[in-house]
This record gives sequence, C-alpha cells and structure tokens, in this order.
Amino acid sequence: MKKILNNPNDFVDESLHGIVLAHADQLKMVNEDLRLLVRKDAPIQGKVAIATGGGYGHLPVFLGYVGEGLADGVCVGNVFSSPSSDAMLAVTKAIDAGKGVLFLYGNYFGDKMNFDLAQEVAEESGIQVETVRVTDDVASQPHENRKKRRGVAGIFYAYKIAGAAANEGKGLQEVKQAAEKVVENVGTIGVGFTPTTIPASGKPTFMIPNDEIEIGIGIHGEPGIERTPVKSAKELVVDLVNHLMGDLNIQPNDEISVLVNGMGATPLKELYVAYREVYNCLLEKEIRIYKPYVGNYGTSLDASGFSISFLKLDEELKGYLDAPVRTPFFQQG
Amino acid sequence: MKKILNNPNDFVDESLHGIVLAHADQLKMVNEDLRLLVRKDAPIQGKVAIATGGGYGHLPVFLGYVGEGLADGVCVGNVFSSPSSDAMLAVTKAIDAGKGVLFLYGNYFGDKMNFDLAQEVAEESGIQVETVRVTDDVASQPHENRKKRRGVAGIFYAYKIAGAAANEGKGLQEVKQAAEKVVENVGTIGVGFTPTTIPASGKPTFMIPNDEIEIGIGIHGEPGIERTPVKSAKELVVDLVNHLMGDLNIQPNDEISVLVNGMGATPLKELYVAYREVYNCLLEKEIRIYKPYVGNYGTSLDASGFSISFLKLDEELKGYLDAPVRTPFFQQG
Repeated sequence: MKKILNNPNDFVDESLHGIVLAHADQLKMVNEDLRLLVRKDAPIQGKVAIATGGGYGHLPVFLGYVGEGLADGVCVGNVFSSPSSDAMLAVTKAIDAGKGVLFLYGNYFGDKMNFDLAQEVAEESGIQVETVRVTDDVASQPHENRKKRRGVAGIFYAYKIAGAAANEGKGLQEVKQAAEKVVENVGTIGVGFTPTTIPASGKPTFMIPNDEIEIGIGIHGEPGIERTPVKSAKELVVDLVNHLMGDLNIQPNDEISVLVNGMGATPLKELYVAYREVYNCLLEKEIRIYKPYVGNYGTSLDASGFSISFLKLDEELKGYLDAPVRTPFFQQG
Repeated sequence: MKKILNNPNDFVDESLHGIVLAHADQLKMVNEDLRLLVRKDAPIQGKVAIATGGGYGHLPVFLGYVGEGLADGVCVGNVFSSPSSDAMLAVTKAIDAGKGVLFLYGNYFGDKMNFDLAQEVAEESGIQVETVRVTDDVASQPHENRKKRRGVAGIFYAYKIAGAAANEGKGLQEVKQAAEKVVENVGTIGVGFTPTTIPASGKPTFMIPNDEIEIGIGIHGEPGIERTPVKSAKELVVDLVNHLMGDLNIQPNDEISVLVNGMGATPLKELYVAYREVYNCLLEKEIRIYKPYVGNYGTSLDASGFSISFLKLDEELKGYLDAPVRTPFFQQG
C-alpha cells in the first residue's frame, strides 16, 4: 500500500491536522477538537447557519465546503463512518447565531440516526433546527423510491444554493426550501474504474477486472447497476447522460448546470474529455448548460472513476448559483 | 487501460476542447487553434505579458495558470512533448501589448529550442522578449549544475511572482528579475509511487515494485536519485525536507512558502498528512512558513506520488505572493 501515511489509525486526525495548520486563517476547531471544524468567523450574526458532516475520505466533501457562501460547520467521522450526535450538537451550538441551523448532509443511515438525535437535543436547548438530506444518486434506488437514494457529489449544489440563500439573510424556512429545491432537481450517476483502499485495512473495498468498469457505483464502493467492458468516453457519457435525463425528466430548452466530478485518482485532463462529451450530447438534445463545474468535488479516497451531476435550473437557482464563495477548497466569483 | 478516452490520438485536443468549452468566459483560442490559448481579455494594455507552454499532461501546469495575476498565454504540445516555435510565436503576438513579453517555462531541451527560435523571430518583428527558465528540481542535477536542472512544480511560484509584478505595471526587466529571483530561491523534490500511463501507448512509463518508491523522480517519469522501500510519511518527509534545506541553504528564522503538490492520483487527504509532517519538521528547525499551498499544482497524468517545494522569501516576494489571482484552475484573494 503506497500512501502518504504513518499509523493508519491516525490517518484521519493527521490529515485534519494538516488542514487546520494550512488553513488556520479560514477554519477553527470547536473545543480544540480536530473533528469539529467551523468557519473562523462563526457564529455569524443575522445569518442562518448550515451544519454538515459525515465520514472522512470524500474531500472536498464535506469539510471543504465550510466557508463563506457555503456551510458554517462540519463534524468529521472516521473513514467512511458517521460522526457522533454529540459532535453534531457541538458544531450546531458553535455556529448558531439565534437564527437557526440547517442540517444538510447525504442520506446515509448512520448520519441520519446521529444527526436526528442531535437535532432533538439542540431543539430542547432552544436552537431551531431543520434537516434536508441529499438523495441525488439516481443509481442507488429506482425513481419511485427516490427519497431513499444515497447522497453523492450533487450535494455540492445543495451547499451552494442553500449557502447563498443563507448568505442573503433568508430565514431558516427559506434556506431549507432552497436546499429542498436542489434535492428535487438534482441527479448524479457515477462510474467506478478502480476501487478505494481504506488505509486501516490496506485492502481494496471490492475487486473489478482490468477490462471492466462499474456504472452506478457509490462513493463508498457500494455496488452499482451494471458492470460493462471498458467503453469509449463518448459511449460511456451518452449512457450516463441518457440515464440522468430520463430520471430528471429533462426536456429540450431546459437549462441545467453540469458537474463532472472525479473520484480522486482520475486526472483532471480526463474529466475535461468527459465534459466535452456531455457538452456535445446536450447540444444535440437542445439542452442549455448554464454553469459547468469540472474537477474533484466529492471523492472516494484513492478510487478512480467519475460522476456526472445535473441540476435543473430556474431563475432563483441561477441567482444562487452565481453567488460568490470562498473556502480553502473552493472559490468562486 | 481504464481512462476517460476516445481515440488516444485525440486525447490532448479533446481534453483542451473540454477546457475551452467549460471556461469560455476566461480563455480564448488564437487562430481558432485549441493548442494556443490566451486570457479572454488579452492583450492587456500597459502590462508586460507572460507566455508559457510545454507538453500536455501536467494540468494545472501550464494552461491552468493562464489568467489574471499569472500568465497571459500558453501553447500546448502533445503529451509530454514541446509545442512548436510557430505556436509560441503566435501566442506571443496575441498577448503582446507593446510592453514586451516574458517567456517563462520549465527547463527542457525541446521547449528551450523552440522557444528560443520563437524569441528570435518575435524580436525581429519588433516585439521585446526576455526568457526565464525554471530549474527547481533539486534531484535532477547536483547543486553546482543547478542551472541545468529540470523545471517541475515550483514553476507555480515563478508564475505567481512574475504575474503579480506584471500586474502591478512593472517593466519587462523588472518582471524578468522577479522571475529570476524565484528561480534562485526555489527548490522542489518529488517522490513517485506509481508511474504514468501515456494514453497513446497504453503502457506505464516505467516499472516499480509494489513495496518501493522513487525519490527525486521527474514529472515525465525521469529516474530519481534513490529507490527505497515504502516509508512512513514522517520518515519520508523528513528526508525530503532535509534535502531541500541543504540545497537552498535555509537557516533558522528564514521564512519560506511551502507547496505540497500531488502528482495526479494521490488523494488530497494524503497531501495534508504530508503537509503536517513538513510543518512539524520546519517548526522544530525554527523555519517560519509564510503561505502554504497544498493540492494538485503540477501533475504527471495519472501517476501517484507528490513533491515538496520551498521558496525562500523576502518582503518583495511576500508582497507578490499575496496578490490576487483568478484563473479557471486557481483562485486566490
């Protein structure tokens, strides 16, 4: 296992420590705990706060989206495992400025259990809390069960939109509605090329032959919907785009944002080859692209592969999408 | 070979096309040629222009550093091979606003030959040109031959400093001197974990056993100075830091910027583990870190591994380092 690593059990804390050391101008710890990180200027008076969290290994998700125009705080679990409800509660208290807190995270069982408990306790202590769970992975459940889907890279759009609404001074219900609007209009589908190796185990999370890829794979290596021989970029992207268009019921003249996201080990140069195919395919179908994003937005440790997310837009969402952002891992405008 | 790829011979153009499509608001082609890219607002009156270029496969190097506060234009070759002198000349003409052009690129034979020829022809047509070649790879030649070293990730600092000087309205000689000051004070050392696979060949550029790493490797897979068994992050980083400190003659109380750069397939989470070790090591040696950068700044297709660069600072360099930057691949301030 060739990794930049000391004791594998220290991987999460040492990586987080590196982040805190490198970005002390923008992030601070709560209770001197590396797993509880909030904006340096939190709590921000007059603003609804956004809390997120989840297992480690998806950087920039989740921690990387803490900053101006996105989330206010994050609690970080072990590799691929949920942080505790106490952690979520501590972050909630550190970022609440009296206008309430939105819990915004990906739909996974452990996270839901712990964050729901934290919400209950926070509310008892007088903090208003609302929750929106992101369910964008179209391959994880059929359309009729879409509220049970997992959350993957499309969560970026939920942070972006809800973060912009909060930054404009909107109230808790409005920020929640903005996030819900994203959840209703976003879809993601991933393709796995090679698996992740979790540092503490030193073993790949699954096996896949050298000439096959897995469509619909999850960001923890959850099984997808189809294994196929390696395809050309064009064939592969056309399949993925058709899948998303059907699921989101995207029609000619609709306007969408596109996110081509790398899983961690796939070079940026290849992601742009994928973006070109998405562009050509949507042009042919007369779908308009409003604001594309290409890069590593939600990864899976050292896995290779990529995902495509679409967000159907209206004027409100476009406005929020354009708003500026500044975090150590993402800047815009 | 699992890549996002159509015909491997089209890889560079398709990837560049994706970039131009995604970032049409910031980049434009010269002569409708995907290999010749300049800032959308070029030429910029009253400003010295900076031209760069080289083989493809190192993104964000070189193309990614074209934008406000960095370079003005780039010519892009095939994978790992130099663009032509005609290409460099066309970019030069497109960005020159009458205040002259600095050629700023990594020290490789093919690039030097072509860019020197372009300089000659540009000067004959009345454009003032100066050249600075970056030679930061301390492992590529011993200290006494340091002017013959290759250019690697430390070129980021040369763009940053010279770009800030040009943006402040400095003249061609001053911009050149700023770049030269970086070259005098920057050093980089890399470590390779796994090799690159060039799309057109489909084969790795070299072989390395599963339990060994290569110290001093170049960004095209050039041989390093030592193969060793896999080491802990701490042991490895201490070696690299000592190597750089000796070469750059860094003393207690010196102030340096640190760049921990990923080769392409190494996860960001691990790069922060490395940064933490650099921080601890420099703290112990009483070296002050002014402004750290951690991420993928100069890659080698799908290779895994990383490099560390140090830039010795003074007040002038610190001022330039702080200046804002906006490109599709890097933003600051």
